[in-house]
Amino acid sequence: MKGGTKAHTGGRSAGEFSWPVRVYYEDTDLGGVVYYANYLRFMERARTEWLRAAGVDQTRLLAEHGLLFVIVGCELAYLRPARFDDLLDVSVVPTAKGRSRFTVEQEVRRGAEVLVTGRVSAACIDAASFRPRGMPASVRELLERRVDVD
Amino acid sequence: MKGGTKAHTGGRSAGEFSWPVRVYYEDTDLGGVVYYANYLRFMERARTEWLRAAGVDQTRLLAEHGLLFVIVGCELAYLRPARFDDLLDVSVVPTAKGRSRFTVEQEVRRGAEVLVTGRVSAACIDAASFRPRGMPASVRELLERRVDVD
Amino acid sequence: MKGGTKAHTGGRSAGEFSWPVRVYYEDTDLGGVVYYANYLRFMERARTEWLRAAGVDQTRLLAEHGLLFVIVGCELAYLRPARFDDLLDVSVVPTAKGRSRFTVEQEVRRGAEVLVTGRVSAACIDAASFRPRGMPASVRELLERRVDVD
Amino acid sequence: MKGGTKAHTGGRSAGEFSWPVRVYYEDTDLGGVVYYANYLRFMERARTEWLRAAGVDQTRLLAEHGLLFVIVGCELAYLRPARFDDLLDVSVVPTAKGRSRFTVEQEVRRGAEVLVTGRVSAACIDAASFRPRGMPASVRELLERRVDVD
Repeated sequence: MKGGTKAHTGGRSAGEFSWPVRVYYEDTDLGGVVYYANYLRFMERARTEWLRAAGVDQTRLLAEHGLLFVIVGCELAYLRPARFDDLLDVSVVPTAKGRSRFTVEQEVRRGAEVLVTGRVSAACIDAASFRPRGMPASVRELLERRVDVD
Repeated sequence: MKGGTKAHTGGRSAGEFSWPVRVYYEDTDLGGVVYYANYLRFMERARTEWLRAAGVDQTRLLAEHGLLFVIVGCELAYLRPARFDDLLDVSVVPTAKGRSRFTVEQEVRRGAEVLVTGRVSAACIDAASFRPRGMPASVRELLERRVDVD
Repeated sequence: MKGGTKAHTGGRSAGEFSWPVRVYYEDTDLGGVVYYANYLRFMERARTEWLRAAGVDQTRLLAEHGLLFVIVGCELAYLRPARFDDLLDVSVVPTAKGRSRFTVEQEVRRGAEVLVTGRVSAACIDAASFRPRGMPASVRELLERRVDVD
Repeated sequence: MKGGTKAHTGGRSAGEFSWPVRVYYEDTDLGGVVYYANYLRFMERARTEWLRAAGVDQTRLLAEHGLLFVIVGCELAYLRPARFDDLLDVSVVPTAKGRSRFTVEQEVRRGAEVLVTGRVSAACIDAASFRPRGMPASVRELLERRVDVD
Protein backbone atom coordinates (compact mmCIF):
# COMPACT_ATOMS: atom_id res chain seq x y z
CA MET A 1 0.00 0.00 0.00
CA LYS A 2 1.19 3.47 -0.80
CA GLY A 3 1.81 6.18 1.79
CA GLY A 4 -0.92 8.48 2.96
CA THR A 5 -3.51 5.81 3.38
CA LYS A 6 -2.59 3.86 6.50
CA ALA A 7 -4.95 4.29 9.44
CA HIS A 8 -3.44 4.13 12.89
CA THR A 9 -4.89 3.79 16.32
CA GLY A 10 -2.27 5.70 18.30
CA GLY A 11 -3.47 8.37 20.70
CA ARG A 12 -5.38 8.34 23.91
CA SER A 13 -7.48 5.25 24.10
CA ALA A 14 -7.14 1.78 22.67
CA GLY A 15 -10.28 1.74 20.53
CA GLU A 16 -9.93 5.27 19.26
CA PHE A 17 -9.58 5.99 15.57
CA SER A 18 -7.36 8.82 14.42
CA TRP A 19 -5.99 10.01 11.11
CA PRO A 20 -2.84 12.05 10.33
CA VAL A 21 -3.14 15.37 8.54
CA ARG A 22 -0.16 17.39 7.36
CA VAL A 23 -0.57 21.18 7.24
CA TYR A 24 0.26 22.68 3.84
CA TYR A 25 0.39 26.24 2.54
CA GLU A 26 -3.18 25.94 1.25
CA ASP A 27 -4.40 25.47 4.84
CA THR A 28 -2.87 28.61 6.32
CA ASP A 29 -3.93 32.24 6.30
CA LEU A 30 -2.11 35.54 6.73
CA GLY A 31 -2.12 35.08 10.52
CA GLY A 32 0.52 32.41 9.82
CA VAL A 33 -1.68 29.61 11.19
CA VAL A 34 -4.37 27.24 9.90
CA TYR A 35 -7.52 29.07 8.74
CA TYR A 36 -10.32 28.23 11.17
CA ALA A 37 -12.74 26.76 8.62
CA ASN A 38 -10.11 24.28 7.44
CA TYR A 39 -10.29 22.23 10.63
CA LEU A 40 -13.73 21.14 9.40
CA ARG A 41 -12.00 19.75 6.29
CA PHE A 42 -9.43 17.95 8.45
CA MET A 43 -12.20 16.50 10.62
CA GLU A 44 -14.09 15.27 7.59
CA ARG A 45 -11.00 13.53 6.21
CA ALA A 46 -10.73 11.66 9.52
CA ARG A 47 -14.45 10.72 9.47
CA THR A 48 -14.15 9.53 5.86
CA GLU A 49 -11.19 7.31 6.75
CA TRP A 50 -12.96 6.08 9.89
CA LEU A 51 -15.89 4.97 7.73
CA ARG A 52 -13.54 3.46 5.14
CA ALA A 53 -11.59 1.55 7.82
CA ALA A 54 -14.89 0.03 8.94
CA GLY A 55 -15.72 -1.06 5.41
CA VAL A 56 -18.28 1.67 4.69
CA ASP A 57 -17.94 2.60 1.02
CA GLN A 58 -19.57 6.01 0.53
CA THR A 59 -19.22 5.87 -3.25
CA ARG A 60 -21.23 2.63 -3.37
CA LEU A 61 -23.77 3.92 -0.84
CA LEU A 62 -24.45 6.81 -3.21
CA ALA A 63 -24.30 4.87 -6.49
CA GLU A 64 -26.27 1.80 -5.38
CA HIS A 65 -28.52 3.11 -2.62
CA GLY A 66 -28.77 6.86 -3.34
CA LEU A 67 -27.59 7.59 0.19
CA LEU A 68 -25.52 10.56 1.25
CA PHE A 69 -24.26 11.73 4.64
CA VAL A 70 -24.71 15.42 5.30
CA ILE A 71 -23.57 17.46 8.28
CA VAL A 72 -26.48 18.88 10.28
CA GLY A 73 -24.56 20.57 13.06
CA CYS A 74 -21.11 21.24 14.43
CA GLU A 75 -19.49 22.92 17.39
CA LEU A 76 -15.79 23.74 17.56
CA ALA A 77 -13.47 25.15 20.21
CA TYR A 78 -10.15 26.51 18.98
CA LEU A 79 -7.59 26.16 21.78
CA ARG A 80 -4.19 26.56 20.08
CA PRO A 81 -3.20 27.29 16.49
CA ALA A 82 -1.72 24.71 14.09
CA ARG A 83 1.05 25.89 11.79
CA PHE A 84 2.52 25.12 8.39
CA ASP A 85 4.34 21.77 8.31
CA ASP A 86 2.67 20.50 11.51
CA LEU A 87 1.73 16.85 11.42
CA LEU A 88 -1.62 16.63 13.19
CA ASP A 89 -3.76 13.75 14.36
CA VAL A 90 -7.51 13.94 14.07
CA SER A 91 -9.54 11.57 16.22
CA VAL A 92 -13.11 10.29 15.77
CA VAL A 93 -15.19 8.99 18.68
CA PRO A 94 -18.90 8.35 18.10
CA THR A 95 -21.01 9.48 21.05
CA ALA A 96 -24.65 9.28 19.98
CA LYS A 97 -26.81 7.70 17.31
CA GLY A 98 -30.39 7.59 16.16
CA ARG A 99 -32.13 5.97 13.20
CA SER A 100 -30.78 8.40 10.60
CA ARG A 101 -28.31 10.50 12.59
CA PHE A 102 -25.12 10.15 14.56
CA THR A 103 -22.73 12.39 16.46
CA VAL A 104 -18.97 12.13 16.82
CA GLU A 105 -16.50 13.96 19.00
CA GLN A 106 -13.24 14.86 17.35
CA GLU A 107 -9.94 16.29 18.45
CA VAL A 108 -7.16 17.80 16.38
CA ARG A 109 -3.87 17.20 18.16
CA ARG A 110 -0.19 17.91 17.65
CA GLY A 111 1.51 15.21 19.66
CA ALA A 112 0.04 15.42 23.14
CA GLU A 113 -1.38 18.93 22.68
CA VAL A 114 -5.07 19.29 21.86
CA LEU A 115 -5.45 22.17 19.38
CA VAL A 116 -9.13 21.99 18.42
CA THR A 117 -12.06 20.02 19.78
CA GLY A 118 -15.28 19.46 17.92
CA ARG A 119 -18.64 17.76 17.98
CA VAL A 120 -20.13 17.00 14.57
CA SER A 121 -23.57 15.57 13.78
CA ALA A 122 -24.36 13.88 10.49
CA ALA A 123 -27.59 12.65 8.93
CA CYS A 124 -28.15 10.00 6.33
CA ILE A 125 -30.33 11.36 3.53
CA ASP A 126 -31.73 10.46 0.15
CA ALA A 127 -29.41 12.16 -2.37
CA ALA A 128 -32.30 13.16 -4.63
CA SER A 129 -34.95 14.31 -2.17
CA PHE A 130 -32.64 15.33 0.71
CA ARG A 131 -35.07 13.51 3.07
CA PRO A 132 -33.74 11.56 6.10
CA ARG A 133 -33.20 7.84 5.53
CA GLY A 134 -32.32 5.06 7.93
CA MET A 135 -28.58 4.47 8.12
CA PRO A 136 -27.21 1.40 6.34
CA ALA A 137 -26.41 -1.62 8.54
CA SER A 138 -22.64 -1.20 8.07
CA VAL A 139 -22.74 2.26 9.63
CA ARG A 140 -25.10 1.23 12.43
CA GLU A 141 -22.73 -1.59 13.34
CA LEU A 142 -19.74 0.73 13.33
CA LEU A 143 -21.52 3.15 15.63
CA GLU A 144 -22.61 0.41 18.03
CA ARG A 145 -19.19 -1.13 18.18
CA ARG A 146 -17.46 2.14 18.84
CA VAL A 147 -20.03 3.52 21.23
CA ASP A 148 -19.68 0.28 23.22
CA VAL A 149 -15.93 0.65 23.41
CA ASP A 150 -15.93 4.14 24.82
CA MET B 1 -18.63 52.54 -6.30
CA LYS B 2 -18.13 49.26 -8.02
CA GLY B 3 -20.41 46.27 -7.53
CA GLY B 4 -19.79 43.75 -4.85
CA THR B 5 -18.93 46.23 -2.16
CA LYS B 6 -22.19 47.87 -1.08
CA ALA B 7 -23.44 46.89 2.35
CA HIS B 8 -27.19 46.72 2.88
CA THR B 9 -29.36 46.53 5.90
CA GLY B 10 -32.27 44.57 4.49
CA GLY B 11 -33.51 41.57 6.42
CA ARG B 12 -35.33 41.06 9.67
CA SER B 13 -34.60 43.98 11.96
CA ALA B 14 -33.80 47.60 11.36
CA GLY B 15 -30.33 47.69 12.91
CA GLU B 16 -29.19 44.38 11.51
CA PHE B 17 -26.19 44.15 9.24
CA SER B 18 -26.17 41.63 6.42
CA TRP B 19 -23.98 40.95 3.41
CA PRO B 20 -24.81 39.26 0.09
CA VAL B 21 -22.92 36.14 -0.96
CA ARG B 22 -23.30 34.48 -4.34
CA VAL B 23 -22.74 30.71 -4.52
CA TYR B 24 -20.17 29.70 -7.14
CA TYR B 25 -18.87 26.34 -8.35
CA GLU B 26 -15.95 26.56 -5.91
CA ASP B 27 -18.42 26.51 -2.99
CA THR B 28 -20.26 23.32 -3.92
CA ASP B 29 -19.45 19.65 -3.48
CA LEU B 30 -20.53 16.45 -5.20
CA GLY B 31 -23.77 16.45 -3.22
CA GLY B 32 -24.73 19.36 -5.49
CA VAL B 33 -24.96 21.81 -2.59
CA VAL B 34 -22.63 24.14 -0.67
CA TYR B 35 -19.87 22.25 1.20
CA TYR B 36 -20.56 22.61 4.91
CA ALA B 37 -17.22 24.19 5.88
CA ASN B 38 -17.74 26.96 3.34
CA TYR B 39 -20.51 28.60 5.35
CA LEU B 40 -17.76 29.59 7.80
CA ARG B 41 -16.10 31.45 4.92
CA PHE B 42 -19.39 33.17 4.04
CA MET B 43 -19.90 34.15 7.68
CA GLU B 44 -16.43 35.61 7.90
CA ARG B 45 -16.97 37.69 4.77
CA ALA B 46 -20.05 39.18 6.46
CA ARG B 47 -18.15 39.86 9.72
CA THR B 48 -15.31 41.50 7.77
CA GLU B 49 -17.76 43.79 5.98
CA TRP B 50 -19.60 44.51 9.22
CA LEU B 51 -16.31 45.68 10.76
CA ARG B 52 -15.43 47.64 7.62
CA ALA B 53 -18.85 49.34 7.55
CA ALA B 54 -18.19 50.50 11.14
CA GLY B 55 -14.82 51.93 10.14
CA VAL B 56 -12.71 49.15 11.64
CA ASP B 57 -9.67 48.67 9.36
CA GLN B 58 -8.19 45.26 10.10
CA THR B 59 -5.16 45.87 7.87
CA ARG B 60 -4.23 48.95 9.93
CA LEU B 61 -4.96 47.19 13.23
CA LEU B 62 -2.41 44.57 12.24
CA ALA B 63 0.18 46.90 10.68
CA GLU B 64 0.04 49.65 13.29
CA HIS B 65 -1.05 47.87 16.46
CA GLY B 66 -0.06 44.23 15.84
CA LEU B 67 -3.64 43.16 16.56
CA LEU B 68 -5.41 40.22 14.98
CA PHE B 69 -8.87 38.77 15.50
CA VAL B 70 -8.96 34.99 15.76
CA ILE B 71 -11.95 32.70 16.07
CA VAL B 72 -12.06 30.87 19.40
CA GLY B 73 -15.30 28.97 18.96
CA CYS B 74 -18.22 28.39 16.64
CA GLU B 75 -21.46 26.47 16.55
CA LEU B 76 -23.48 25.89 13.39
CA ALA B 77 -26.83 24.34 12.58
CA TYR B 78 -27.43 23.35 8.96
CA LEU B 79 -31.16 23.53 8.25
CA ARG B 80 -31.43 23.59 4.45
CA PRO B 81 -28.83 23.37 1.68
CA ALA B 82 -27.74 26.31 -0.48
CA ARG B 83 -27.13 25.61 -4.16
CA PHE B 84 -25.05 26.90 -7.06
CA ASP B 85 -26.14 30.35 -8.23
CA ASP B 86 -28.09 31.10 -5.03
CA LEU B 87 -27.78 34.67 -3.83
CA LEU B 88 -27.58 34.44 -0.06
CA ASP B 89 -27.67 37.00 2.73
CA VAL B 90 -25.45 36.58 5.76
CA SER B 91 -26.39 38.54 8.87
CA VAL B 92 -24.25 39.63 11.83
CA VAL B 93 -25.74 40.40 15.24
CA PRO B 94 -23.36 40.87 18.18
CA THR B 95 -24.70 39.26 21.34
CA ALA B 96 -21.92 39.34 23.93
CA LYS B 97 -18.62 41.05 24.60
CA GLY B 98 -15.79 41.06 27.08
CA ARG B 99 -12.47 42.88 27.27
CA SER B 100 -10.80 40.90 24.48
CA ARG B 101 -13.64 38.72 23.12
CA PHE B 102 -16.99 39.06 21.47
CA THR B 103 -19.70 36.77 20.13
CA VAL B 104 -21.98 37.26 17.14
CA GLU B 105 -25.00 35.35 15.92
CA GLN B 106 -25.22 34.89 12.20
CA GLU B 107 -27.78 33.57 9.76
CA VAL B 108 -27.34 32.50 6.16
CA ARG B 109 -30.61 33.12 4.33
CA ARG B 110 -32.02 32.71 0.84
CA GLY B 111 -34.80 35.27 0.74
CA ALA B 112 -37.00 34.54 3.76
CA GLU B 113 -35.62 31.02 4.28
CA VAL B 114 -33.00 30.52 6.96
CA LEU B 115 -30.49 27.94 5.70
CA VAL B 116 -27.78 27.98 8.36
CA THR B 117 -27.55 29.56 11.79
CA GLY B 118 -24.31 30.12 13.66
CA ARG B 119 -22.76 31.56 16.76
CA VAL B 120 -19.13 32.63 16.38
CA SER B 121 -16.78 33.92 19.09
CA ALA B 122 -13.66 35.91 18.29
CA ALA B 123 -10.75 37.10 20.40
CA CYS B 124 -8.41 40.01 19.87
CA ILE B 125 -4.81 38.83 20.15
CA ASP B 126 -1.26 40.04 19.73
CA ALA B 127 -0.20 38.83 16.26
CA ALA B 128 3.30 37.91 17.43
CA SER B 129 2.65 36.27 20.81
CA PHE B 130 -0.94 35.09 20.19
CA ARG B 131 -1.81 36.43 23.69
CA PRO B 132 -5.21 38.09 24.35
CA ARG B 133 -5.26 41.87 24.03
CA GLY B 134 -7.94 44.42 24.85
CA MET B 135 -10.07 45.22 21.82
CA PRO B 136 -9.48 48.57 20.11
CA ALA B 137 -11.95 51.37 20.94
CA SER B 138 -13.50 51.27 17.43
CA VAL B 139 -14.54 47.64 17.89
CA ARG B 140 -15.76 48.15 21.46
CA GLU B 141 -17.97 51.01 20.24
CA LEU B 142 -19.35 48.93 17.41
CA LEU B 143 -20.25 46.13 19.79
CA GLU B 144 -21.89 48.49 22.27
CA ARG B 145 -23.90 50.24 19.63
CA ARG B 146 -25.14 47.05 18.09
CA VAL B 147 -25.76 45.22 21.31
CA ASP B 148 -27.85 48.20 22.45
CA VAL B 149 -29.93 48.12 19.31
CA ASP B 150 -30.96 44.50 19.63
CA MET C 1 -30.56 45.67 -6.06
CA LYS C 2 -28.48 44.29 -3.27
CA GLY C 3 -24.70 44.72 -3.14
CA GLY C 4 -22.35 42.20 -4.62
CA THR C 5 -24.31 41.54 -7.75
CA LYS C 6 -23.78 44.54 -10.01
CA ALA C 7 -21.65 43.95 -13.04
CA HIS C 8 -19.56 46.82 -14.26
CA THR C 9 -17.64 47.49 -17.38
CA GLY C 10 -14.87 49.68 -16.02
CA GLY C 11 -11.32 48.88 -17.00
CA ARG C 12 -9.36 48.98 -20.22
CA SER C 13 -11.69 48.69 -23.16
CA ALA C 14 -15.28 49.61 -23.78
CA GLY C 15 -16.65 46.15 -24.47
CA GLU C 16 -14.71 44.40 -21.73
CA PHE C 17 -16.48 42.61 -18.95
CA SER C 18 -14.98 42.67 -15.47
CA TRP C 19 -16.14 41.66 -12.02
CA PRO C 20 -15.04 42.92 -8.58
CA VAL C 21 -13.57 40.51 -6.05
CA ARG C 22 -12.74 41.45 -2.49
CA VAL C 23 -9.85 39.58 -0.82
CA TYR C 24 -10.82 37.99 2.50
CA TYR C 25 -8.87 36.06 5.12
CA GLU C 26 -9.90 32.76 3.49
CA ASP C 27 -8.02 33.75 0.33
CA THR C 28 -4.63 34.43 1.92
CA ASP C 29 -1.83 32.16 3.06
CA LEU C 30 1.01 32.50 5.55
CA GLY C 31 3.03 34.52 3.03
CA GLY C 32 0.50 37.29 3.78
CA VAL C 33 -0.81 37.34 0.21
CA VAL C 34 -3.47 35.56 -1.86
CA TYR C 35 -2.77 31.83 -2.22
CA TYR C 36 -1.92 31.18 -5.86
CA ALA C 37 -4.64 28.61 -6.56
CA ASN C 38 -7.31 31.04 -5.40
CA TYR C 39 -6.91 33.26 -8.45
CA LEU C 40 -8.53 30.42 -10.39
CA ARG C 41 -11.55 30.76 -8.11
CA PHE C 42 -11.62 34.54 -8.69
CA MET C 43 -11.38 34.02 -12.45
CA GLU C 44 -14.24 31.55 -12.38
CA ARG C 45 -16.46 33.97 -10.48
CA ALA C 46 -15.84 36.52 -13.23
CA ARG C 47 -16.61 33.98 -15.98
CA THR C 48 -19.79 32.92 -14.19
CA GLU C 49 -20.96 36.53 -13.96
CA TRP C 50 -19.98 37.18 -17.57
CA LEU C 51 -22.18 34.26 -18.64
CA ARG C 52 -24.98 35.43 -16.33
CA ALA C 53 -24.79 39.00 -17.68
CA ALA C 54 -25.27 37.56 -21.17
CA GLY C 55 -28.34 35.62 -20.07
CA VAL C 56 -26.67 32.21 -19.90
CA ASP C 57 -28.24 30.31 -17.00
CA GLN C 58 -25.88 27.47 -16.07
CA THR C 59 -28.35 25.97 -13.60
CA ARG C 60 -30.94 25.60 -16.39
CA LEU C 61 -28.37 24.34 -18.88
CA LEU C 62 -27.59 21.53 -16.45
CA ALA C 63 -31.16 20.81 -15.31
CA GLU C 64 -32.84 21.02 -18.72
CA HIS C 65 -30.10 20.09 -21.15
CA GLY C 66 -27.64 18.09 -19.05
CA LEU C 67 -24.85 20.44 -20.11
CA LEU C 68 -21.87 21.40 -18.01
CA PHE C 69 -18.84 23.58 -18.72
CA VAL C 70 -15.55 22.12 -17.59
CA ILE C 71 -12.10 23.65 -17.69
CA VAL C 72 -9.74 21.82 -20.05
CA GLY C 73 -6.68 23.99 -19.68
CA CYS C 74 -5.30 27.09 -18.03
CA GLU C 75 -2.14 29.13 -17.97
CA LEU C 76 -1.39 31.77 -15.37
CA ALA C 77 1.37 34.32 -14.82
CA TYR C 78 1.67 35.78 -11.33
CA LEU C 79 3.15 39.27 -11.60
CA ARG C 80 2.39 40.92 -8.25
CA PRO C 81 0.70 39.65 -5.08
CA ALA C 82 -2.80 40.66 -3.98
CA ARG C 83 -3.32 41.22 -0.26
CA PHE C 84 -6.06 41.02 2.36
CA ASP C 85 -8.74 43.70 1.90
CA ASP C 86 -7.71 44.46 -1.69
CA LEU C 87 -10.61 45.12 -4.03
CA LEU C 88 -9.67 43.46 -7.30
CA ASP C 89 -11.17 43.49 -10.77
CA VAL C 90 -11.22 40.36 -12.86
CA SER C 91 -11.72 40.76 -16.59
CA VAL C 92 -13.01 38.28 -19.18
CA VAL C 93 -12.19 38.59 -22.87
CA PRO C 94 -13.06 35.67 -25.16
CA THR C 95 -10.34 35.03 -27.72
CA ALA C 96 -11.15 31.76 -29.45
CA LYS C 97 -14.05 29.37 -29.96
CA GLY C 98 -14.87 26.07 -31.56
CA ARG C 99 -17.98 23.90 -31.65
CA SER C 100 -17.70 22.73 -28.04
CA ARG C 101 -14.82 24.80 -26.67
CA PHE C 102 -13.85 28.38 -26.03
CA THR C 103 -10.92 30.29 -24.60
CA VAL C 104 -10.90 33.50 -22.60
CA GLU C 105 -8.10 35.77 -21.47
CA GLN C 106 -8.44 37.15 -17.98
CA GLU C 107 -6.63 39.70 -15.88
CA VAL C 108 -6.75 40.25 -12.14
CA ARG C 109 -6.11 43.91 -11.46
CA ARG C 110 -5.88 46.25 -8.48
CA GLY C 111 -6.73 49.61 -9.96
CA ALA C 112 -4.37 50.08 -12.89
CA GLU C 113 -1.91 47.38 -11.77
CA VAL C 114 -2.17 43.97 -13.41
CA LEU C 115 -1.48 41.33 -10.75
CA VAL C 116 -2.22 38.08 -12.57
CA THR C 117 -2.90 37.23 -16.20
CA GLY C 118 -4.50 34.03 -17.35
CA ARG C 119 -5.79 32.11 -20.32
CA VAL C 120 -8.53 29.59 -19.57
CA SER C 121 -10.14 27.10 -21.95
CA ALA C 122 -13.51 25.52 -21.27
CA ALA C 123 -15.44 22.74 -22.95
CA CYS C 124 -19.15 22.07 -23.01
CA ILE C 125 -19.82 18.46 -22.02
CA ASP C 126 -22.63 16.07 -21.30
CA ALA C 127 -22.89 15.99 -17.48
CA ALA C 128 -23.54 12.24 -17.41
CA SER C 129 -21.08 10.92 -20.00
CA PHE C 130 -18.49 13.74 -19.80
CA ARG C 131 -18.41 13.69 -23.63
CA PRO C 132 -18.05 16.96 -25.61
CA ARG C 133 -21.30 18.57 -26.74
CA GLY C 134 -21.99 21.53 -29.01
CA MET C 135 -22.33 24.75 -27.05
CA PRO C 136 -25.83 26.19 -26.61
CA ALA C 137 -26.79 29.07 -28.92
CA SER C 138 -26.76 31.61 -26.09
CA VAL C 139 -23.08 30.92 -25.41
CA ARG C 140 -22.15 30.86 -29.10
CA GLU C 141 -23.76 34.27 -29.53
CA LEU C 142 -21.97 35.68 -26.52
CA LEU C 143 -18.64 34.47 -27.86
CA GLU C 144 -19.28 35.87 -31.32
CA ARG C 145 -20.38 39.22 -30.02
CA ARG C 146 -17.38 39.60 -27.76
CA VAL C 147 -14.84 38.22 -30.13
CA ASP C 148 -16.08 40.75 -32.72
CA VAL C 149 -15.66 43.62 -30.30
CA ASP C 150 -12.03 42.98 -29.52
CA MET D 1 6.04 6.27 11.33
CA LYS D 2 2.45 7.37 11.13
CA GLY D 3 0.34 7.06 8.00
CA GLY D 4 0.11 9.83 5.48
CA THR D 5 3.77 10.77 5.54
CA LYS D 6 5.62 8.10 3.60
CA ALA D 7 7.05 9.19 0.28
CA HIS D 8 7.21 6.61 -2.46
CA THR D 9 8.99 6.45 -5.73
CA GLY D 10 6.58 4.30 -7.67
CA GLY D 11 5.45 5.48 -11.07
CA ARG D 12 7.15 5.94 -14.42
CA SER D 13 10.85 6.40 -13.87
CA ALA D 14 13.27 5.28 -11.20
CA GLY D 15 14.34 8.69 -9.96
CA GLU D 16 10.88 10.25 -10.03
CA PHE D 17 9.29 11.58 -6.88
CA SER D 18 5.54 11.22 -6.39
CA TRP D 19 3.15 11.72 -3.52
CA PRO D 20 -0.27 10.12 -2.87
CA VAL D 21 -3.35 12.31 -2.55
CA ARG D 22 -6.77 11.00 -1.55
CA VAL D 23 -9.81 12.84 -2.93
CA TYR D 24 -12.25 13.96 -0.23
CA TYR D 25 -15.61 15.69 -0.32
CA GLU D 26 -13.91 19.07 0.14
CA ASP D 27 -12.13 18.61 -3.20
CA THR D 28 -15.19 17.97 -5.35
CA ASP D 29 -17.78 20.27 -6.89
CA LEU D 30 -21.33 19.83 -8.11
CA GLY D 31 -20.11 18.27 -11.34
CA GLY D 32 -19.26 15.28 -9.13
CA VAL D 33 -15.52 15.57 -9.85
CA VAL D 34 -12.51 17.40 -8.41
CA TYR D 35 -12.81 21.18 -8.73
CA TYR D 36 -10.20 22.35 -11.24
CA ALA D 37 -8.36 24.79 -8.94
CA ASN D 38 -7.79 22.04 -6.38
CA TYR D 39 -5.26 20.23 -8.56
CA LEU D 40 -2.95 23.16 -7.83
CA ARG D 41 -3.31 22.33 -4.14
CA PHE D 42 -2.52 18.67 -4.84
CA MET D 43 0.53 19.65 -6.87
CA GLU D 44 1.79 21.89 -4.11
CA ARG D 45 1.47 19.12 -1.55
CA ALA D 46 3.69 16.97 -3.77
CA ARG D 47 6.25 19.77 -4.21
CA THR D 48 6.30 20.37 -0.45
CA GLU D 49 6.96 16.69 0.22
CA TRP D 50 9.56 16.56 -2.55
CA LEU D 51 11.44 19.42 -0.85
CA ARG D 52 10.99 17.79 2.57
CA ALA D 53 12.29 14.43 1.27
CA ALA D 54 15.41 16.24 0.08
CA GLY D 55 15.93 17.80 3.50
CA VAL D 56 14.70 21.28 2.55
CA ASP D 57 12.90 22.70 5.61
CA GLN D 58 10.69 25.57 4.44
CA THR D 59 9.78 26.59 7.98
CA ARG D 60 13.47 27.10 8.82
CA LEU D 61 14.17 28.84 5.50
CA LEU D 62 11.51 31.39 6.43
CA ALA D 63 12.35 31.73 10.14
CA GLU D 64 16.13 31.80 9.80
CA HIS D 65 16.72 33.21 6.33
CA GLY D 66 13.51 35.11 5.56
CA LEU D 67 13.12 33.10 2.35
CA LEU D 68 9.85 32.09 0.76
CA PHE D 69 9.03 30.23 -2.44
CA VAL D 70 6.26 31.77 -4.50
CA ILE D 71 4.65 30.51 -7.67
CA VAL D 72 5.31 32.76 -10.66
CA GLY D 73 3.57 30.77 -13.35
CA CYS D 74 1.65 27.61 -14.06
CA GLU D 75 0.11 25.79 -16.97
CA LEU D 76 -2.34 22.91 -16.59
CA ALA D 77 -4.05 20.53 -18.98
CA TYR D 78 -7.10 18.68 -17.64
CA LEU D 79 -7.40 15.37 -19.46
CA ARG D 80 -9.74 13.26 -17.31
CA PRO D 81 -11.65 14.02 -14.10
CA ALA D 82 -10.71 12.66 -10.68
CA ARG D 83 -13.55 11.62 -8.40
CA PHE D 84 -14.39 11.31 -4.72
CA ASP D 85 -12.42 8.53 -3.00
CA ASP D 86 -9.85 8.27 -5.79
CA LEU D 87 -6.31 7.69 -4.59
CA LEU D 88 -4.11 9.79 -6.86
CA ASP D 89 -0.38 10.08 -7.34
CA VAL D 90 1.21 13.44 -8.00
CA SER D 91 4.69 13.46 -9.53
CA VAL D 92 7.39 16.14 -9.43
CA VAL D 93 10.13 16.34 -12.06
CA PRO D 94 12.34 19.45 -12.13
CA THR D 95 13.06 20.59 -15.67
CA ALA D 96 14.75 23.98 -15.46
CA LYS D 97 16.50 26.19 -12.96
CA GLY D 98 18.09 29.62 -12.68
CA ARG D 99 19.63 31.54 -9.80
CA SER D 100 16.32 32.30 -8.06
CA ARG D 101 13.79 30.27 -10.07
CA PHE D 102 13.00 26.70 -11.00
CA THR D 103 10.39 24.85 -13.00
CA VAL D 104 8.89 21.43 -12.39
CA GLU D 105 6.64 19.23 -14.46
CA GLN D 106 3.93 17.42 -12.57
CA GLU D 107 1.36 14.77 -13.35
CA VAL D 108 -1.71 13.77 -11.42
CA ARG D 109 -2.40 10.10 -12.06
CA ARG D 110 -4.89 7.45 -11.03
CA GLY D 111 -2.96 4.25 -11.46
CA ALA D 112 -1.66 4.27 -15.04
CA GLU D 113 -4.07 7.00 -16.21
CA VAL D 114 -2.77 10.55 -16.43
CA LEU D 115 -5.58 12.90 -15.35
CA VAL D 116 -3.87 16.29 -15.25
CA THR D 117 -0.47 17.52 -16.40
CA GLY D 118 1.13 20.71 -15.22
CA ARG D 119 4.21 22.87 -15.43
CA VAL D 120 4.80 25.11 -12.40
CA SER D 121 7.51 27.75 -11.94
CA ALA D 122 8.56 29.00 -8.52
CA ALA D 123 10.82 31.82 -7.40
CA CYS D 124 12.74 32.24 -4.19
CA ILE D 125 12.00 35.64 -2.67
CA ASP D 126 12.68 37.71 0.40
CA ALA D 127 9.57 37.33 2.56
CA ALA D 128 9.58 40.99 3.61
CA SER D 129 10.43 42.78 0.35
CA PHE D 130 9.11 40.14 -2.11
CA ARG D 131 12.35 40.65 -4.11
CA PRO D 132 14.05 37.67 -5.82
CA ARG D 133 16.80 35.99 -3.83
CA GLY D 134 19.31 33.30 -4.75
CA MET D 135 18.02 29.84 -3.87
CA PRO D 136 19.55 28.14 -0.82
CA ALA D 137 22.22 25.51 -1.52
CA SER D 138 19.97 22.65 -0.41
CA VAL D 139 17.44 23.49 -3.12
CA ARG D 140 20.07 24.06 -5.80
CA GLU D 141 21.53 20.64 -5.05
CA LEU D 142 18.11 18.99 -5.21
CA LEU D 143 17.46 20.58 -8.58
CA GLU D 144 20.84 19.56 -9.97
CA ARG D 145 20.54 16.01 -8.77
CA ARG D 146 17.07 15.56 -10.18
CA VAL D 147 17.68 17.35 -13.41
CA ASP D 148 20.68 15.07 -13.93
CA VAL D 149 18.63 11.95 -13.36
CA ASP D 150 15.99 12.74 -15.95
